Amino acid sequence: MTWSTLGERFALTVFGESHGHSIGCVISGCPSGIPITVKEIQKELDLRKPGISKLTTQRKEQDRVEILSGIFNDHTTGSPICMTIKNKDTRSEDYDNIMKTPRPGHADFTAWEKYGGFNDYRGGGHFSARLTACFVMGGVVAKKLLKTSFNTDIIAYVKEIGKIKSSSNFKSAKKNRYSNDVRCPDSIIAKKMSNAIIKARRSGDSLGGVIECQIINVPVGLGEPIFSALDSEISRAMFSIPAVKGVEFGKGFESTKILGSENNDQYSVTRKKITTKTNNSGGILGGISNGMPIEFRIAFKPPSSILKKQSSFNLKSKKAEDLVVKGRHDPCVLPRAVPIVESVAALVLADHGLRSGQINSVIK
Amino acid sequence: MTWSTLGERFALTVFGESHGHSIGCVISGCPSGIPITVKEIQKELDLRKPGISKLTTQRKEQDRVEILSGIFNDHTTGSPICMTIKNKDTRSEDYDNIMKTPRPGHADFTAWEKYGGFNDYRGGGHFSARLTACFVMGGVVAKKLLKTSFNTDIIAYVKEIGKIKSSSNFKSAKKNRYSNDVRCPDSIIAKKMSNAIIKARRSGDSLGGVIECQIINVPVGLGEPIFSALDSEISRAMFSIPAVKGVEFGKGFESTKILGSENNDQYSVTRKKITTKTNNSGGILGGISNGMPIEFRIAFKPPSSILKKQSSFNLKSKKAEDLVVKGRHDPCVLPRAVPIVESVAALVLADHGLRSGQINSVIK
Amino acid sequence: MTWSTLGERFALTVFGESHGHSIGCVISGCPSGIPITVKEIQKELDLRKPGISKLTTQRKEQDRVEILSGIFNDHTTGSPICMTIKNKDTRSEDYDNIMKTPRPGHADFTAWEKYGGFNDYRGGGHFSARLTACFVMGGVVAKKLLKTSFNTDIIAYVKEIGKIKSSSNFKSAKKNRYSNDVRCPDSIIAKKMSNAIIKARRSGDSLGGVIECQIINVPVGLGEPIFSALDSEISRAMFSIPAVKGVEFGKGFESTKILGSENNDQYSVTRKKITTKTNNSGGILGGISNGMPIEFRIAFKPPSSILKKQSSFNLKSKKAEDLVVKGRHDPCVLPRAVPIVESVAALVLADHGLRSGQINSVIK
Amino acid sequence: MTWSTLGERFALTVFGESHGHSIGCVISGCPSGIPITVKEIQKELDLRKPGISKLTTQRKEQDRVEILSGIFNDHTTGSPICMTIKNKDTRSEDYDNIMKTPRPGHADFTAWEKYGGFNDYRGGGHFSARLTACFVMGGVVAKKLLKTSFNTDIIAYVKEIGKIKSSSNFKSAKKNRYSNDVRCPDSIIAKKMSNAIIKARRSGDSLGGVIECQIINVPVGLGEPIFSALDSEISRAMFSIPAVKGVEFGKGFESTKILGSENNDQYSVTRKKITTKTNNSGGILGGISNGMPIEFRIAFKPPSSILKKQSSFNLKSKKAEDLVVKGRHDPCVLPRAVPIVESVAALVLADHGLRSGQINSVIK
Repeated sequence: MTWSTLGERFALTVFGESHGHSIGCVISGCPSGIPITVKEIQKELDLRKPGISKLTTQRKEQDRVEILSGIFNDHTTGSPICMTIKNKDTRSEDYDNIMKTPRPGHADFTAWEKYGGFNDYRGGGHFSARLTACFVMGGVVAKKLLKTSFNTDIIAYVKEIGKIKSSSNFKSAKKNRYSNDVRCPDSIIAKKMSNAIIKARRSGDSLGGVIECQIINVPVGLGEPIFSALDSEISRAMFSIPAVKGVEFGKGFESTKILGSENNDQYSVTRKKITTKTNNSGGILGGISNGMPIEFRIAFKPPSSILKKQSSFNLKSKKAEDLVVKGRHDPCVLPRAVPIVESVAALVLADHGLRSGQINSVIK
Repeated sequence: MTWSTLGERFALTVFGESHGHSIGCVISGCPSGIPITVKEIQKELDLRKPGISKLTTQRKEQDRVEILSGIFNDHTTGSPICMTIKNKDTRSEDYDNIMKTPRPGHADFTAWEKYGGFNDYRGGGHFSARLTACFVMGGVVAKKLLKTSFNTDIIAYVKEIGKIKSSSNFKSAKKNRYSNDVRCPDSIIAKKMSNAIIKARRSGDSLGGVIECQIINVPVGLGEPIFSALDSEISRAMFSIPAVKGVEFGKGFESTKILGSENNDQYSVTRKKITTKTNNSGGILGGISNGMPIEFRIAFKPPSSILKKQSSFNLKSKKAEDLVVKGRHDPCVLPRAVPIVESVAALVLADHGLRSGQINSVIK
Repeated sequence: MTWSTLGERFALTVFGESHGHSIGCVISGCPSGIPITVKEIQKELDLRKPGISKLTTQRKEQDRVEILSGIFNDHTTGSPICMTIKNKDTRSEDYDNIMKTPRPGHADFTAWEKYGGFNDYRGGGHFSARLTACFVMGGVVAKKLLKTSFNTDIIAYVKEIGKIKSSSNFKSAKKNRYSNDVRCPDSIIAKKMSNAIIKARRSGDSLGGVIECQIINVPVGLGEPIFSALDSEISRAMFSIPAVKGVEFGKGFESTKILGSENNDQYSVTRKKITTKTNNSGGILGGISNGMPIEFRIAFKPPSSILKKQSSFNLKSKKAEDLVVKGRHDPCVLPRAVPIVESVAALVLADHGLRSGQINSVIK
Repeated sequence: MTWSTLGERFALTVFGESHGHSIGCVISGCPSGIPITVKEIQKELDLRKPGISKLTTQRKEQDRVEILSGIFNDHTTGSPICMTIKNKDTRSEDYDNIMKTPRPGHADFTAWEKYGGFNDYRGGGHFSARLTACFVMGGVVAKKLLKTSFNTDIIAYVKEIGKIKSSSNFKSAKKNRYSNDVRCPDSIIAKKMSNAIIKARRSGDSLGGVIECQIINVPVGLGEPIFSALDSEISRAMFSIPAVKGVEFGKGFESTKILGSENNDQYSVTRKKITTKTNNSGGILGGISNGMPIEFRIAFKPPSSILKKQSSFNLKSKKAEDLVVKGRHDPCVLPRAVPIVESVAALVLADHGLRSGQINSVIK
């Protein structure tokens, strides 16, 4: 598996740079016969599109998907699916100084060192969060595959922004998570979060937060221990989303503070159907799904591209230099990250549906 | 890459069951010329050996490593290295009831369903934490490779047990982490932790906690974005350790509560050497090591094998049944997990040293 | 590694269908800093372009390459390189009957069965030899990488067409292989071959043949036994070229008829430089390059798309049916296959240069 | 996938050296529930065991298989299966001169260069044909899986030794291939072959030949184009067998000499069952099995370890030196290679049965 590819059986390869010709993806191993239209893909892309609210970057991109291969008569063919998005609203001149002065907290420095200065630095190049649009394109196909196969639903929502915490649950999230710009189902809290984000932007600063995700209707048996355990693969994929700094399943870090007898999920049987009375495990036991909802939380740091003056250095001369970032940036990535987290989760589950043999290679 | 293999260029494949003939591993892709002796491997294995203190399971296993291939004249040959450990002190009869009544919180149920009841259920079979001895065997070789190549040191220690938190730092950890049974460098806190674990055991219960890990002397440029980002790969590997429920890097979940201007690590230059004034990123930017220490924290849930009566069911009849677990189990896995976390980190870094081309395929 | 990807470190993923929107490829893992221009890529593509002589299909395609990512300021960036070609001169109506009546010797039947009838059948869809243009696009980058790293040259030429055999050697091939439409350096034999191909076309038939390939300036040590042996990987890749039915290295099938003492290549030393007096091994010992030229021969069957009436059946009704193929097809693939074989060889060697650690991840 | 592993879903990892502690393999991804006994594995191993006739090396090895994991109550568990064989009759002193003077035609030189002289040179170490015992161990499980799933049979036999050619067919081969030491079903020809081999041995020389293999009862749809085409994967695996120099499918190199109209396999329909009137394709179209028998031929060079004096050099001083090989070697590998070719074919097909989704992950 190459480092630009996520998954083995349902494999997403991504390419592109923020200010280059296009960004895009190739899905290999997708079963044939999944009904899918450009419209469905575009609809999901629009959920993470920039410039749609005052909470996001003002860069204007229509993010129009173009299907180059793998879909014929509105069905997947079984051959690789390539989808691309052309970059339109690029203002590369904003990045002329970043070329020589790396942004603290960003990949500018490490990318320069790793690629010997040959990397496309404009807008972070291949390291731009813009690449996550490719996760979403792939995610639409993965979600459709999971829906068709298991009636699976994936619901993510903004749980926390900075120190503001919502007490929403997944039930309301499923219904209302896209009902406001913050993507927090609780409209009162959402308003507070929105204000906090705008305040951070005004002061040239940024905010992070936590996204919570639940996946329902997952069959028992997904995940391939030891090293392709389902939690292993989900966390691995989540850390490929820029700004992610932590992942926890079920009770996560909280479970370290209670006793085994409190943390173990007791079994319960109703008409030969096995469930657990609690779901502290987050639906995964021994790296394998147990049929309960899969639940996890993702920590996003505040975006590193802030307008305040910061201490940096000149990449070539290796001399200290102050930096004032230009460009249009998200003061908070979480609202746009909601569809991204859902898509990445879908990609991992679709892959494991196929790896476990529970999804067939032809959908009829 | 198969699901029993961790890594691509330095690839560890593990096999075995807790109460079967043997457990073991095969390392493929290990460079030739690394000096390594049976004694070095055994020394590290002894750190996670069961039955060495009253804080661990009383199962007595000498865990004697046997090298079957890949090491010749005390050097790696470049061919696959197979190492095995024979299982000795097995009391399978303890598991006769588990065969039909799965332990809450354990893989008994998911493994049974996934493998159609053909899995070796004795002692959790392939899902037993006993398999982590294979991580340690591979980890010794990986550590030696990293030490030879970069002078890298990996230091893990017990930071929290239940609600007891240590304020130790890595400096003391490097010196004292193995100076007591708990593997917490702070001896006063260690004593408290030890008492808490013994108390939990006495009441037939168990405790979890947090292990903190720091890796120093890591070159800039390890990690292969997007999907083999260094944090992606480390977290993926950590979730393959039984009982792990959360992973965070640098400031992790804490970073979601502060501003970008507070979280960004400002650069500092001393004689053309680039460092950062803080290390909130945990040494990774854009999925690539930045030369600062790599720091992360791992959440371990309390072990699921507790002696208290629990609600379960009969796997065959699918009827509710209570369960009282027999067998000898760890009331807390963290003390033995310290060398495991270090080994797993070493395996991932060795792999990335080779993938990035910074480690050569022959060590001279 | 997904099934649409060739290679692990220098990994080519291909996509597209013969009559779809576009065909293309993504190269992952390519080192940064390789100088490369659109012009260089186009020049090589023009060598396999259809419609350039009366020996090939009359389908007119300009095969204009478009670079979507991974190349910046005429150098590779280290990020995935995506290149595409739009399909222009499509006459899908020619394939309406093939949809229901599979061509003997072609993938029409197996693709239909494997993908449940959802495959894009037009022009063979993803199974069209047109996809080999993607091998060539990737091959240009691979050749440049090998040239820069080892000064490697790859020379393929048409050795046999049907029963007509050329006695050309690699020396003349290097100079003259592209001096005529057949791509056989011996102009007299080339004329005979040309006539045979035209005769076959006129009679609605087709011809096969043998391409011989030599790779010079290959360092000792490429190839990763046991299962990524250099001959294993080259043959695997060659069989991915449509119409290939056999691969042999060095003396190949001939070596089965002589004694070990005749076949063994005796060593010879000149100024500490090791060579062998003969090269019956084809430059590979134990799956590893030995520094001698790598030599192999590829058998191409006659193309299966012929105009003569053939016995087939209806895919849906499963009733016998005769078939008369329409469309524009190559009466012989070998002339256009010469740059393809060279490209595929380059892709495998570039991958192994990186896997062995002999090529660095940054070219300066 | 690491270079010591064959296959992705049914993945065989091999390890060991000819004169080391043990040789062995790990199968990952094998479905659970396959009935398998030590006796079945041993029976197949005995077919390739050395020292069983005057046509093979006189090295005496009982090749006793030991199962370390993955088989429980005589069924596969779904967890990795490790099997080992201890080396017994080692005479390493025979190799003291090979350490410094590489055998022409053998891997001694390339292995030394690649691994910087750290390789275990004794008996060719990891490059010894002895490692093929691991292919056979894995092959037994793969054959059982294929038999259970598709009733597949794999029949290989010795077709040619040097210039002696048998006209046997697969029908007789299935019945009689193991009825004599040569493993050629035609007893008269077998006698001639046997004499030729003995003659070669007496003169301190060696002989090569061709093995033909047929696989019947293969479902339509195995093989994952483009780069995991079934012929690609089979040839790749075959070239991992020492001494293999050529692979051809169906009519192979012969097909290059006839017209498309002669080579195309015309379809024929009987009661909705699709077959072809000829099988020039060898049962593979577009890299996918078409339901006809898979047929291929493998060219084995004469073994390079001959007793005649040869020109070599000193690995350290790089000075020319003559070599007289000691040790016990096969004058011809083909008789012992028959079960090896069958096993390797089984491994590839089992992998593709799983990859295509036609084999389930649990066998009931």
